[in-house]
Amino acid sequence: MLLTPLIEKKRDGGRLTPDELRTLLGAYMEGTLAEYQMSAFLMAAFIRGLDPEELSVLTRAIIASGMRLDFGDGGAPAVDKHSTGGVGDKVSLVLAPLLAEAGLRVPMMSGRGLGHTGGTLDKLEAIPGFEVDIGLDRFRAILDEVGCAMIGQTEEIAPLDGRLYALRDVTGTVPSPALIAASIVSKKVAEGIEALVLDVKCGRGAFMPDAARGHALARKMVDLAAAEGVRATALLTRMDAPLGHTVGNALEVGEAIETLRGGGPADLREVTLALGAELLVSAGRATEVGEAATRLATILETGAPLGRFARLIEAQGGDPLVADDPGRLPVAPVQVPFPSAGAGWLDIHARLVGLASVELGAGRRRFDDAVDPTVGFEFHRAAGDQVAEGETLVTIHAADTSGAATAANRLTEAIEVSDEPIPPRPLILERVGDGVPAES
Amino acid sequence: MLLTPLIEKKRDGGRLTPDELRTLLGAYMEGTLAEYQMSAFLMAAFIRGLDPEELSVLTRAIIASGMRLDFGDGGAPAVDKHSTGGVGDKVSLVLAPLLAEAGLRVPMMSGRGLGHTGGTLDKLEAIPGFEVDIGLDRFRAILDEVGCAMIGQTEEIAPLDGRLYALRDVTGTVPSPALIAASIVSKKVAEGIEALVLDVKCGRGAFMPDAARGHALARKMVDLAAAEGVRATALLTRMDAPLGHTVGNALEVGEAIETLRGGGPADLREVTLALGAELLVSAGRATEVGEAATRLATILETGAPLGRFARLIEAQGGDPLVADDPGRLPVAPVQVPFPSAGAGWLDIHARLVGLASVELGAGRRRFDDAVDPTVGFEFHRAAGDQVAEGETLVTIHAADTSGAATAANRLTEAIEVSDEPIPPRPLILERVGDGVPAES
Repeated sequence: MLLTPLIEKKRDGGRLTPDELRTLLGAYMEGTLAEYQMSAFLMAAFIRGLDPEELSVLTRAIIASGMRLDFGDGGAPAVDKHSTGGVGDKVSLVLAPLLAEAGLRVPMMSGRGLGHTGGTLDKLEAIPGFEVDIGLDRFRAILDEVGCAMIGQTEEIAPLDGRLYALRDVTGTVPSPALIAASIVSKKVAEGIEALVLDVKCGRGAFMPDAARGHALARKMVDLAAAEGVRATALLTRMDAPLGHTVGNALEVGEAIETLRGGGPADLREVTLALGAELLVSAGRATEVGEAATRLATILETGAPLGRFARLIEAQGGDPLVADDPGRLPVAPVQVPFPSAGAGWLDIHARLVGLASVELGAGRRRFDDAVDPTVGFEFHRAAGDQVAEGETLVTIHAADTSGAATAANRLTEAIEVSDEPIPPRPLILERVGDGVPAES
Repeated sequence: MLLTPLIEKKRDGGRLTPDELRTLLGAYMEGTLAEYQMSAFLMAAFIRGLDPEELSVLTRAIIASGMRLDFGDGGAPAVDKHSTGGVGDKVSLVLAPLLAEAGLRVPMMSGRGLGHTGGTLDKLEAIPGFEVDIGLDRFRAILDEVGCAMIGQTEEIAPLDGRLYALRDVTGTVPSPALIAASIVSKKVAEGIEALVLDVKCGRGAFMPDAARGHALARKMVDLAAAEGVRATALLTRMDAPLGHTVGNALEVGEAIETLRGGGPADLREVTLALGAELLVSAGRATEVGEAATRLATILETGAPLGRFARLIEAQGGDPLVADDPGRLPVAPVQVPFPSAGAGWLDIHARLVGLASVELGAGRRRFDDAVDPTVGFEFHRAAGDQVAEGETLVTIHAADTSGAATAANRLTEAIEVSDEPIPPRPLILERVGDGVPAES
């Protein structure tokens, strides 16, 4: 089959048959379709879109390009969560031990920080000794032993996604709902999970600015996962201000520990419980999300999930004593208070805070940048709070005084104190459930 | 300047500023923008289009990537013609010596056969000894001596076009009016000509199927050339049946010689005179195309252009005696008559004839295929003629009997004898002139 006519078909808005798309992707994997041909196809697919059948073929080809794990061994249902990326989002650190404690298995594959958003792997590595490159055998063994395990993307799973993503990253074809959906769902399906919950962040601190586009992406992912036999739901959650009170890797681990102990900020608890409840229902361990959330809240109260987290840390080579003593986490040498410039109601711009944290060293500007686990922001007041002039809103954790000064400058942009109260808005904007209509 | 955002801008339908587009193209030439990035940009430009300013920047960048010839030395105006490609189109072989005889200089740069269409360089190489890779110095010298010279695209002129074209060819981004216009006009401007005429072929044997799209392409090219200081006009000419009576390299040279002697088929003469007349007017050597065409027809009658052609052949290393004795051209070993299957009015499908001639060996299926100069088709009747059952419509010139048999099979598809007369349609569909409005 000639390959260029397939590119031309997509260019002109046509849809490729399953055979045609499989031929194109197969040729790319074998090297007979060059990178410059694939990038032209991806641009055409970006602009023209992919229909549900094409998306399904692409997703299956990515899954089939590598190993597909299987946890259908009669044990507890295996589940995972995926977030499209936010600021201060340490949900995974709480959710994995919590769900393990609730009787599910959580083989969690996470990513690193991207742009202004943080990454779970970077947060875990703030724990002294914690290893995320543990290989699939150890990953499985830890999962069996602890009930949850946390790893990064490996070469063995969905290698085609890695190649396509690297190409999209440099050719302006990343933010396509179709390509994003195929990339996320294929990796999660290849993980061998039974149920998946998607946290689609919407707002000024998210990659997806508005809920309408978030909804479309969520719908695509939920349907695509369902077609591959994975029960999925999605929550659209607001990402206007950072989630919780901390931004920065060690600081966020500390906050996750506080939450696993039964405390923690209300917004972090709310999102974690809601996502967890979706998974309990999808995995068939609860019939209704309200009841499931209550059960998870009760489990959190016991403090048992924190013990589970300590076991996870120990299994992955980290210092388990941080669970009881977060003071063992690395600490930034410089801590500077950031006072409120005025009196009024507090607004915090998540994206600008995320960018400021990257500048402090908490994230990466280039893929091979090193991350400083200690730096970041500790907010003493939440968005929406009424604050007084001069009170300390934030403690800046920095590597040196000049870094702290730059960060303080950035915060003057990211933080606003307004004369008017900010009307409270819901944190969970929408639930996108299994869209398969009942048979009629 | 970051490059990926420039690709994204075009992806989303934006227009690049001159600085942005120059940066992108410059990075590509330097190698800091990779082929796979350029192909993604070209696909985006294909789908979203380029506005007149972008097109002008692209054209100028292609020109500036190589040498720009200059014939503004006070001698006769330098002119050239470009055809978008047809079947049986040997116009250049007649036009160059004819215009030289009419007092113009014709530094003609031509191409090779592409797809089902023939190429002037392949036709010239059917003349024993004729060299087309003569280098720019010899090209200039021959032009000075003979008044016309014929060469292929060289590395020295518009090298960026060569790179972009090779990339477009394998990424499904060739038939974009904008990219085609920039490619053609940039090369012609870099040739250093003063006036240009474009033969935009329209119809079932052309790359451009309908006159509306042909018009849009012609308009783009004429305006783009004008912006670069080259006076250009375009004729949309019908390419439903082959032009003239022959298809195949040596056969077409023979027919060109016949036409240069003052004979030849009416359609070939009509197109040649019309294109030549446009150039005489654009070059300021005539005020009106009707009068210019009459003058050229008179010159053809004298037979002098054939002597000019003989001098051109000799200067470029070929056997000049073919001009007086076309029997010296190479001849196919097998010649087979193709009889009419019925009685009625003849229709000839140019594209199918072109494809059949490629199959015979007259053209290329792949870029590095060798071309057989001898093979092709000699039509004894023209499209529209009334023919009798059993009369010989075509002589097939083939390398062997099996090639001839295959070609005869193809001709049964390409040739139709219908019960109804075919209404005559004009050969020249439209003239697209200098569109610059008078100042008001």
